[in-house]
Amino acid sequence: MFSAKLALKTNSEHQTTIKISEGVSVGGKDLLIIAGPCAVESLEQMEQVARHLAAAPVQMLRGGVYKPRTSPYAFQGLGDAGLKILDAVRQRYNIPVVTEVMAIAQIESIVAHADMLQIGSRNMQNFDLLKAVGKTNKPVMLKRGLAATIEEFIFAAEYILSHGNPNVILCERGIRSFDNYTRNVLDLGAVVALKQLTHLPIVVDPSHAAGKRELVAALARAAVAAGADGLMIECHPQPEKSVSDARQALALQEMVELVHSLRSVAAAVGRHVPIVEPQRQLAVA
Amino acid sequence: MFSAKLALKTNSEHQTTIKISEGVSVGGKDLLIIAGPCAVESLEQMEQVARHLAAAPVQMLRGGVYKPRTSPYAFQGLGDAGLKILDAVRQRYNIPVVTEVMAIAQIESIVAHADMLQIGSRNMQNFDLLKAVGKTNKPVMLKRGLAATIEEFIFAAEYILSHGNPNVILCERGIRSFDNYTRNVLDLGAVVALKQLTHLPIVVDPSHAAGKRELVAALARAAVAAGADGLMIECHPQPEKSVSDARQALALQEMVELVHSLRSVAAAVGRHVPIVEPQRQLAVA
Amino acid sequence: MFSAKLALKTNSEHQTTIKISEGVSVGGKDLLIIAGPCAVESLEQMEQVARHLAAAPVQMLRGGVYKPRTSPYAFQGLGDAGLKILDAVRQRYNIPVVTEVMAIAQIESIVAHADMLQIGSRNMQNFDLLKAVGKTNKPVMLKRGLAATIEEFIFAAEYILSHGNPNVILCERGIRSFDNYTRNVLDLGAVVALKQLTHLPIVVDPSHAAGKRELVAALARAAVAAGADGLMIECHPQPEKSVSDARQALALQEMVELVHSLRSVAAAVGRHVPIVEPQRQLAVA
Amino acid sequence: MFSAKLALKTNSEHQTTIKISEGVSVGGKDLLIIAGPCAVESLEQMEQVARHLAAAPVQMLRGGVYKPRTSPYAFQGLGDAGLKILDAVRQRYNIPVVTEVMAIAQIESIVAHADMLQIGSRNMQNFDLLKAVGKTNKPVMLKRGLAATIEEFIFAAEYILSHGNPNVILCERGIRSFDNYTRNVLDLGAVVALKQLTHLPIVVDPSHAAGKRELVAALARAAVAAGADGLMIECHPQPEKSVSDARQALALQEMVELVHSLRSVAAAVGRHVPIVEPQRQLAVA
Repeated sequence: MFSAKLALKTNSEHQTTIKISEGVSVGGKDLLIIAGPCAVESLEQMEQVARHLAAAPVQMLRGGVYKPRTSPYAFQGLGDAGLKILDAVRQRYNIPVVTEVMAIAQIESIVAHADMLQIGSRNMQNFDLLKAVGKTNKPVMLKRGLAATIEEFIFAAEYILSHGNPNVILCERGIRSFDNYTRNVLDLGAVVALKQLTHLPIVVDPSHAAGKRELVAALARAAVAAGADGLMIECHPQPEKSVSDARQALALQEMVELVHSLRSVAAAVGRHVPIVEPQRQLAVA
Repeated sequence: MFSAKLALKTNSEHQTTIKISEGVSVGGKDLLIIAGPCAVESLEQMEQVARHLAAAPVQMLRGGVYKPRTSPYAFQGLGDAGLKILDAVRQRYNIPVVTEVMAIAQIESIVAHADMLQIGSRNMQNFDLLKAVGKTNKPVMLKRGLAATIEEFIFAAEYILSHGNPNVILCERGIRSFDNYTRNVLDLGAVVALKQLTHLPIVVDPSHAAGKRELVAALARAAVAAGADGLMIECHPQPEKSVSDARQALALQEMVELVHSLRSVAAAVGRHVPIVEPQRQLAVA
Repeated sequence: MFSAKLALKTNSEHQTTIKISEGVSVGGKDLLIIAGPCAVESLEQMEQVARHLAAAPVQMLRGGVYKPRTSPYAFQGLGDAGLKILDAVRQRYNIPVVTEVMAIAQIESIVAHADMLQIGSRNMQNFDLLKAVGKTNKPVMLKRGLAATIEEFIFAAEYILSHGNPNVILCERGIRSFDNYTRNVLDLGAVVALKQLTHLPIVVDPSHAAGKRELVAALARAAVAAGADGLMIECHPQPEKSVSDARQALALQEMVELVHSLRSVAAAVGRHVPIVEPQRQLAVA
Repeated sequence: MFSAKLALKTNSEHQTTIKISEGVSVGGKDLLIIAGPCAVESLEQMEQVARHLAAAPVQMLRGGVYKPRTSPYAFQGLGDAGLKILDAVRQRYNIPVVTEVMAIAQIESIVAHADMLQIGSRNMQNFDLLKAVGKTNKPVMLKRGLAATIEEFIFAAEYILSHGNPNVILCERGIRSFDNYTRNVLDLGAVVALKQLTHLPIVVDPSHAAGKRELVAALARAAVAAGADGLMIECHPQPEKSVSDARQALALQEMVELVHSLRSVAAAVGRHVPIVEPQRQLAVA
């Protein structure tokens, strides 16, 4: 692990802040709250999400357009059409967006239409993809593999960093275990360790860890208390109708309430949930 | 899991508060903070701990006298002599104590000299021991097994409850995983799930999960934010000289600072870290 | 691990053979085949098993009388009455028997009525129980814990050995993993490693590992090829009516066929499946 | 799992045999033995391996030229130069070769110069890569992911099959667990299950599972006894000088001895280790 020169802290105060768009960054005092559906399903859906969450406030939208699905027969995402929807909503509501890149061939268009690239858990050690996003300078959110050690996770980030892109955000999203009451085990010990080892911002995704919506809010608060720099949470206008991961998505109003509940926890550990920016409020109104 | 009638909530508000000693209980608004060394080593050691932590404040002391050790050649605890030390400190400083019971033959004397029995992880499914402590009415803190599912954990509690003892406290202490940077993976998702499923108080032990002292404080704060009813944390007058688990014990002053840092996190989720009771301050002074 | 002096080989040829009863031993060239139901249910059941398996041949019968069950409301075994059934069958058919000991209080009667004590997975680190069986000189079959490392397994054996009992047999029975198609993952790599590290005989239980009867025979053959000294397999006169673990029990005829299929595999790795002894044939006839 | 139409058996006799090159196939009565170094290091190295193993006999050579390495600073393979070495040896010794494909851009040249494509564990759910190799008709050996369930493994194969390539071979190579004495846990229960569920040939890689060369031979024999259709084993002219995975590679002579020891195990389960073909012997001589 200790040969991962670029990912590791040079001293205990070393902490990188990454700018994602005008007024939105991650790694500083402000928490980054990312929310949205598992998959982009339609323009109407994404507009509903954007309008409802602007006041949460949520600083960034998520929505998958290329979807890594266990079965080849499951919905694979809207693809390019989904990316256009995402970009339209991003511009209309002046809110940055993140979406997953699954293949080198998708990088160029996602870089053009989104503010952050997500490397999913299944691709954490898709080294050619890591090298390729390392040659862009877009922020990259790298999700931890389902059974990746902390060392492997740091080295995966190092692949991106060493190819020239300094804008890497780590994302803990739960690891595989023997129990199946929760979908995965959220490893906040890894978050605490990573905050001490690396200078990179760390976002926590409690939705994929929990796999059950009723567990998400408490885990989100725990993640903030553990020192996470941000959260990524799945929510949907009609969770039970979500085309994927329906069981773990919050309703939009639950998402708003969750953000409210985070304020005092964030304050307790010296962090801050940013309030909505005037220009975005304008866009929504 | 759903045949574990006694352990499960009858409605969403159902929550049990267990009284441990005069003025000390767990499961209510007040968090229960338990601290102390892995093993009782001497009267001097335990008095140092008690004096230093009274003002933390810590509500309860821990200290193992019968120690479950991987190797038969490792220090097995002071046994009965250790139990007497624990009882002496408990009386002098007017502070309740918890210690591990490893065998049925030890129950009677531990019941006489301590305020809470601990069933360790390795004995979570030692069903004859569970039945035997179920026939006492001492509070029992049941630690989750190293690879126990949530269902198995609830049923282990049900063994105690169904034998007549309603005073069961669950303790999450980390589960086995593939990574070895942390000693175990603290499963706060299980804590959130257990708070929803059962009415029993839940204590979190971040020390055994982390295995590294520098990770303990942030995990303790995360546990409180997740909804834990209490914490059990290892600390030692000279951590590096601890006869066991030296790597994970906090120094006493670090323990005091940790408790202080918990106040605002507790408040953020509607909980409270109790202040020291006058009678104990008197005892210490 | 390397301080486990008594369990480890002193040189690469060091191998212990343990005598279980007249003509039955484990650790030598002959494989030890143990078979029988998860639980002793009735005298008729056990007689049916003994009669049918004598010609398999099976060298030893298993049958639980004290049963470690996840739920306190599940069948807990016939207890002492079951032990008497086991002893009656053992004498009538002149076949040794093994049964699980869950508590120190049960040791005396099991020692009197059975030929081998089994320590179950859940009690692998019930150190007081290990010490107590270490003070007998009955053969003890120690099953690996659900998430026990090889080091912990060896040290658990060392607890028994260091208390005076040299007759320890290790049993690999599958470990916990993230997949649930099989009940546990049979760890034959551990069997190979243990054969190299220790001089103790090693028995493999493919039934609890597989959890599905259709997987048992092939895993049994693999275990023999890996170098196991014996097998323990669940079978039942009417598997689907077994009071516990019904899904993994073989029918008696399947058990006979399995033993037949083992002969050539055993021979391929220099081992031997013993033929039935005349005196037992006599007993059955 | 049961929607994976193309990968699943239509009846219990359904078994696919895949032809790899003239006289070499997998899935029939003959076992496929693949051997060679972790990485292609030089022409001399590969020629030494080919000459030595022809008489083993080994039917196929392995050698990585594009290497997925945890650290970006570790040796990444010889790349195209390595592929040319592999092709030269393949032609000179008339022996088919397999090498790993890590990226879509490498498919064309590997298809031209090798007989089988390997998808590594880290790419088992790199769905775009699976789709791309699904559009070729080269045999593809798909290695199970480090923490992939049996269901996910079958669906990954289904991605390849459903894109038009019927020549998929599954490879079990060990899964992540809590123990670190072995590198991974070889899951032969999964091999048995997969043989029952799918009609695809299954190869076992005991080298990556064991991680220690002294465990490889016994695990290889166990895999054959469990019903595997082939083995892939790492070996090297000077194991201790291997640029990667040095600890798990067999010496060439050990490899030859291992193959010899497999003959009787194979015969015991109705399989066969093919003898060396005259034309290859000629090539070597």
